[in-house]
Amino acid sequence: MVDAIANNCPLCTTDGGVLVFRNDQVRVVQAIEPGFPAFYRVVWHTHVAEFSDLTPGERDSCMNTVVTVEQVLREHLQPTKINLAALGNAVPHLHWHVIARFDWDSHFPGSVWAAPQRDAQTHRLTELAVQCNQVNRLLAAKLAE
Amino acid sequence: MVDAIANNCPLCTTDGGVLVFRNDQVRVVQAIEPGFPAFYRVVWHTHVAEFSDLTPGERDSCMNTVVTVEQVLREHLQPTKINLAALGNAVPHLHWHVIARFDWDSHFPGSVWAAPQRDAQTHRLTELAVQCNQVNRLLAAKLAE
Repeated sequence: MVDAIANNCPLCTTDGGVLVFRNDQVRVVQAIEPGFPAFYRVVWHTHVAEFSDLTPGERDSCMNTVVTVEQVLREHLQPTKINLAALGNAVPHLHWHVIARFDWDSHFPGSVWAAPQRDAQTHRLTELAVQCNQVNRLLAAKLAE
Repeated sequence: MVDAIANNCPLCTTDGGVLVFRNDQVRVVQAIEPGFPAFYRVVWHTHVAEFSDLTPGERDSCMNTVVTVEQVLREHLQPTKINLAALGNAVPHLHWHVIARFDWDSHFPGSVWAAPQRDAQTHRLTELAVQCNQVNRLLAAKLAE
């Protein structure tokens, strides 16, 4: 049994971004990552490090949330690609990155953790950030269903 | 309905690594990534780009394979952290990276796609590569259950 709360863990002590939705197991936040407005995280509330620390039912629940976020991003933003990742090397508290990527973004086709490949496109980022305000509302509604 | 096979896709025309296991939906390969012997991929056979292109049952099946790989890596290699990712920006054919990360590896705690943080440790990598030969056999047996 792992501790439910780890005092020094930023995902135990903060939401980890702009709160979009939460239920009793999981929350969805919009990350605050310059250059990537459509960067979301699905954070498991309990402090566990690895996806396989969850029970099969918890994994289903977690991935259903990840997939719903992916579906809303695809439908409303038509990204070039969705990136999903659970890394946690720096913050070993289970969280899934769900990122809508665009062929014009600063790092594409590299990962968001790689070196940038071009300058950020301010106009497009501003437009995307506005769209994400709407996405946040859609996500909250869809995830509450 | 997407095409089952895309001619120019490297994951339609090759295994994408050293084949460890395959069934009718999915295969597990050991990636050939210098510095990361314990880098595996779960490749969905059909050419779909996104995880949410799968049906719910297919997603369960896919993630069950991912979790089994994760569990075997954790049990036999005791990594510092497992990294899971489905990116596909360069190769938009659904594949999950399942990577056992160690605090001594060249990129830790960065992602394997980020810049290296230290030199590769040849002795430890050689030892890990030997362990992975055993992991490959254990994976094949476990996934066949």
